Amino acid sequence: MTLLTVWAPHARRVELEYGSARRPMHRQEGGEWRLEVPQLAHGEDYAFHLDGAGPFPDPRSRWQPQGVHGPSRWVDHGRFEWNDRDWQPPPLAAAVIAEIHVGTFTDEGSFDGVIDRLDHLVDLGITHVELMPVQEFPGERGWGYDGVNLFAPHHAYGGPDGLKRLVDACHARGLAVLLDAVYNHLGPEGNHLGRFGPYFTDAYRTPWGDAVNFDRAHSDAVRRFFLDNALMWLRDYRFDGLRIDAVHAIVDTSAIHFLEELAAEVRRLEAETGRHRVLIAESDLNDPRLIRPVEAGGYGLDAQWNDDFHHALHALLTGERDGYYADFGTIGHLERVLTRGYAYDGVRSVYRGRRHGRPATGLPGRRFVGCLQNHDQVGNRAAGERSSHLLSAGLLKVGAALVLTAPFVPLLFQGEEWGAKTPFLYFTDHPDPDLGEAVRKGRREEFAAFGWDPERIPDPQDRATFERSRLDWTELDRAEHAALLAWHRKLIALRRSHPAFADDRLDTIRVCFDEQQRWLIVLRPAVIVACNLAGGDRRLHCAQLAGHRILLASSPDAALDGEAIALPAESVAILAR
Amino acid sequence: MTLLTVWAPHARRVELEYGSARRPMHRQEGGEWRLEVPQLAHGEDYAFHLDGAGPFPDPRSRWQPQGVHGPSRWVDHGRFEWNDRDWQPPPLAAAVIAEIHVGTFTDEGSFDGVIDRLDHLVDLGITHVELMPVQEFPGERGWGYDGVNLFAPHHAYGGPDGLKRLVDACHARGLAVLLDAVYNHLGPEGNHLGRFGPYFTDAYRTPWGDAVNFDRAHSDAVRRFFLDNALMWLRDYRFDGLRIDAVHAIVDTSAIHFLEELAAEVRRLEAETGRHRVLIAESDLNDPRLIRPVEAGGYGLDAQWNDDFHHALHALLTGERDGYYADFGTIGHLERVLTRGYAYDGVRSVYRGRRHGRPATGLPGRRFVGCLQNHDQVGNRAAGERSSHLLSAGLLKVGAALVLTAPFVPLLFQGEEWGAKTPFLYFTDHPDPDLGEAVRKGRREEFAAFGWDPERIPDPQDRATFERSRLDWTELDRAEHAALLAWHRKLIALRRSHPAFADDRLDTIRVCFDEQQRWLIVLRPAVIVACNLAGGDRRLHCAQLAGHRILLASSPDAALDGEAIALPAESVAILAR
Repeated sequence: MTLLTVWAPHARRVELEYGSARRPMHRQEGGEWRLEVPQLAHGEDYAFHLDGAGPFPDPRSRWQPQGVHGPSRWVDHGRFEWNDRDWQPPPLAAAVIAEIHVGTFTDEGSFDGVIDRLDHLVDLGITHVELMPVQEFPGERGWGYDGVNLFAPHHAYGGPDGLKRLVDACHARGLAVLLDAVYNHLGPEGNHLGRFGPYFTDAYRTPWGDAVNFDRAHSDAVRRFFLDNALMWLRDYRFDGLRIDAVHAIVDTSAIHFLEELAAEVRRLEAETGRHRVLIAESDLNDPRLIRPVEAGGYGLDAQWNDDFHHALHALLTGERDGYYADFGTIGHLERVLTRGYAYDGVRSVYRGRRHGRPATGLPGRRFVGCLQNHDQVGNRAAGERSSHLLSAGLLKVGAALVLTAPFVPLLFQGEEWGAKTPFLYFTDHPDPDLGEAVRKGRREEFAAFGWDPERIPDPQDRATFERSRLDWTELDRAEHAALLAWHRKLIALRRSHPAFADDRLDTIRVCFDEQQRWLIVLRPAVIVACNLAGGDRRLHCAQLAGHRILLASSPDAALDGEAIALPAESVAILAR
Repeated sequence: MTLLTVWAPHARRVELEYGSARRPMHRQEGGEWRLEVPQLAHGEDYAFHLDGAGPFPDPRSRWQPQGVHGPSRWVDHGRFEWNDRDWQPPPLAAAVIAEIHVGTFTDEGSFDGVIDRLDHLVDLGITHVELMPVQEFPGERGWGYDGVNLFAPHHAYGGPDGLKRLVDACHARGLAVLLDAVYNHLGPEGNHLGRFGPYFTDAYRTPWGDAVNFDRAHSDAVRRFFLDNALMWLRDYRFDGLRIDAVHAIVDTSAIHFLEELAAEVRRLEAETGRHRVLIAESDLNDPRLIRPVEAGGYGLDAQWNDDFHHALHALLTGERDGYYADFGTIGHLERVLTRGYAYDGVRSVYRGRRHGRPATGLPGRRFVGCLQNHDQVGNRAAGERSSHLLSAGLLKVGAALVLTAPFVPLLFQGEEWGAKTPFLYFTDHPDPDLGEAVRKGRREEFAAFGWDPERIPDPQDRATFERSRLDWTELDRAEHAALLAWHRKLIALRRSHPAFADDRLDTIRVCFDEQQRWLIVLRPAVIVACNLAGGDRRLHCAQLAGHRILLASSPDAALDGEAIALPAESVAILAR
C-alpha cells in the first residue's frame, strides 16, 4: 500500500495520473492532498493534475528517469541493501574534502564512474567526498545549481540506486560523503513548485528572482519541504552531511531562521540514528552567528566556506585584483584570515561599498572550510582556468601547503591535486531552446563587460564545453602532474599524522611577513610554515624558527640556519620542533 | 564658524543656498560635501542644490519652520539652557508610560500645551511620557509616522526650542521622556533622501515601498544617518529613550543588525553622559533576540511592545475576533502571555498562516511593554474607538487592573486613564492634493473591505477629523470619568508602592481560570489578581487565596472567604498576604 501525498493548498482539484487513469485525491486540513494507491510499486510512473492542468511531476519526486519534464517514478527507499552498518564519518576537524562534479569527474560521468576512482581519493588522503548538486536539473549536463526536482538524483548520473551505490562504496572505503544542497532558489526550467503552492515570495529579491518563502503565510509547509529534503539525503541516502549553497540568499526574518531549524532537525537525526552528520554553509555574510552554537545565539551549523581565505590566497598568489579580489592581495589580508577567521570582520570593503562582517571571536578553525580553488572560483571565469593555469609549479606547491597546513578544513577541487590542465567551464543543457539561448547570451554579455571577445566565450549549451571540462586522468602519466600529486599526498599525510594540526585555535596563530620581499612565516603553536612567494631566493628571519627542523619542503635547497631559513624562489617549508 | 556637510555620493555638483547666494560645496572622500559658512548663525535659513536641481532641505535639517517643502533653518543646540543637571530617569522596571500625541493632547496642540498638562500625568503616577513622532511631517496635522525631516521637531508643535522646553519641564517634574522614532520608512511627501544618496533599496519590499538600505552598498552612511538621528534626540534633546517603530520592517541581513549597532551606540552614550537611556522596539516578530543581551547573541534592546498581551486582553474583553484578533480570545491566550511573554512563541497562528515566534525563556517582564490600547489599536479602527467605547465601566476597570498589575511595563494611551470618549482617528494634512486624495481613497477602500459604508469613514484630510480626535479635558468634570481616573491612580499607586510588583519573573506566574465561567486568577509570588469577566456574580475558588487579604477591589462587594473570593459581575480584586 502506497500513500501518495502532495501539498497544494490553493488547488480546488488534484488528481493522480497513474497507469492510464486519473484518480481524484482527497484534501486534508492544511492543504495536503492524499490518496492510497495499492498498485503503485517501486519503479512505476505517476504524475499530478492540478485543477485540470498537467501532468506535472511530484514536487517531492524521488526519480525523474525522463528528466524534469517527464513523469515521476516511485522509489521505495527500503529496498536498497546497505553494507555500511557500523559506519561513522571522521570529524570535520580531521577532514580533507574533495569537491567532485559527477558528470565530469570520470569518462562515464556517472555515480558508478565515481566509484571506480574512489581509490585515487583514498590514496590521496581524502576523508570527505563532496558532490556538487545531483538533484534533477534540466537536460543531461549541468553544474546542478538549477535543480528543480530536489528529491530526485539526476537520471543521467544513474538515479537513486546509482547514488546509493556510490555512498555505500565511499563508506566501504572509509570515505564520508557530503552533498551540495540548493535551498535559496530553484532552476528556471521545469520548476512547477509555484503551481502547487506559495513556495516563493516577492517580499525579497534574489539574483534568481523571487525568494523562497521561508517566513510568510504558508511558510511552514515550504520549510517542511526543504527540511524533509535535507533529512532524506541524510537518512535515505546516508549522506554524512550537506553543503548548503549560498545561504545569504535565504532571507528569513522570522524568529527561528530556517538554517537554525535545519540544524536542530539534523541534530535530532544524529541522536536517532547514532551517526554524526555535518552542515556546512556557503555564506557571503561573514556572520559568525551561522556557526556559533545555539546556546550562544547561533544557528549551530558545523562550518562555513571561508571565501575570505580563498580570495586572500588567490589574489596574493595570482596578483589578480578584478571584482571582489579588489578587497584582497596583500599578505596582511591572509594574516587577518588566518588569525581572525575573516579578513572582513566589520571593516570596510571597497568592493561592497560598506563595512562587512563581524569578528569570529573564539571560533576554532574547524568552523571554516578553506581552499585554493573550488567549482565557482574556477568555473565562474570566462575560460574556466584552474590555479594550475594561473600559477607556476612552485607557487602551486606553496598554495597547496598554505591550504593543507591551515587551521581550516581543507578542500580540493577535482583534479587540483595533480594540477589538472582541463578547464572547468560553465555548461548547461536546457531542453528549452529559448532558455538555452538566454543562458548563452547572458554568459557572453557578462564577460563582454570585462572586455572579452564574445566569440571566445565558450557556449554553455554546446556539448563540447561540457566535454572539455571533463578530467583527463591520463595527465597523471606525466611527470609534472605526478610530482604535484605526490606533493599533495605528502602534505595531507603530514596534516593527518602530525599532532600539531589538531590544534585549530586561531587566536594562537601569528604571521611574520614582509610584503615588499614577498615572504611570510605562519607561526602556529607546534608547527611553522615558511613561504617565499618571490621570484628570487629569500632569507626569512624570525626568532621563533630557532630550535625547529624542516618536516617537509617543496625545494631541496630550503635550509634552516638558527633564526633564519633560506628558501629558493616560490618555495615553502614546514617546520616543527 | 559653521561647517555644513551633506552626503551626496553620486552628485557631481552640490551648492549651498544661503541668503541670496549659491555657493559650491567641496566633495570629500566617501561622498560627503562640505562648506564652512562663517555667516550662518542660529535661526538662519539655507538649502541645497544637487546638480542644478533644487532647492532641497538638508536631509539632516534641524528645523523646517515652513514645513517639509520649505528651507532648512540652522539650529545651534548649544544655546538652550537646560535645568536638568542631575536628572536620572527611573528604571523601566519601575515605569508607567503615558503615550501622548502632541497635536491632540491639549487644545493648544503644541509642546508648550503639553507642559501645561504634565501635572495631571504626575498626579496620575506616570513616570515616562512617550511622544508619538514629532519629526517634521507634511502639513500641520498628522500622527507623525510620515516624517521626512527626521532631525527636525515639527514646526506646528513649536520647533526645536519648544521640544527642549517640554523635555526640560518633564525632567523638572521627575518625568522621563521617550520619543517614537521611525526608521523603517520615510513619508511619501517631501522625501528627497533618494536624491541625495542610495538611502533605499529594492532588495526588500515593505508596506511602504522600497526598504531603507541598511545592508547594501553605501549602507554605512545610511546607517550613520539613522544612528546620528537617534543620538541627536538622546543627546541634544535629552530624551531618556526611544520607541523604535515597526522594527520588523527594518530588513538587515548583514552580520551586525542595525538595531544591535544602535543599542551599542546608545550604551556608549550612556557611559559618556552618565545618564540612563532606553530603547524599546515595536516588533511584530515575537523574536526574543531583540531584547536578549548581546552576550547571549541578542541585540541588547531594553524592551519591546507586547502586541500579544494587547491582543489577548482586547479580544478577551471585547469579544472581537476580526483580523489578528482571530488568533486570540480565550483566557488561555492571556495565560500564555503572562507566563511566557508571548502567546505565539513558535506555535501556529491562523491569522499568519504559519508558526510564529520563539520562546522568550528566561526573559523578565520588564522587557515587554503592555497596554490595553495604544494609538495604533485605537486609530487603526475606522471609527477610532477607544476601549472606553467598547467596554462596560466594569470591564474597563478589570482591563486597567490587568495592565497595571501585569509583570510588563504598563502603557496608557492619552485619556485612557479617564475613559475619554473622544475618538482617536486617522488624520493627515498632505499639502499635495493628489496624495491627500489617495490617502482618503485608501482609507475608504481599506474599511469598505470590512463592510463599512465609505461615506461613514472619516476623511483623514478633513481638519474636523483631527479636531474630533483632540482630548476633551472637560470630561474630567463628569463623575464616571473622575471615578475611572481615581481607579487608575489607585492601581498605579499600588503598583509603585507595593514591593510585590518588583518581582517581574514570568516563570513564577500561574493563572487559575475557567473559560466557561469567564473568571481568572493571576497568581504571582506575592500578589494575586482575581477577575470576574462574566455578566453575573461568580465565586472564584483557588487554594492559593487562603491567607490573603484584599488590597484593592473595583467593587465594594468583593468578598474573600478562605480559598474562594466572591466577585460581582465584571469586577476585579487585588490581594496579598
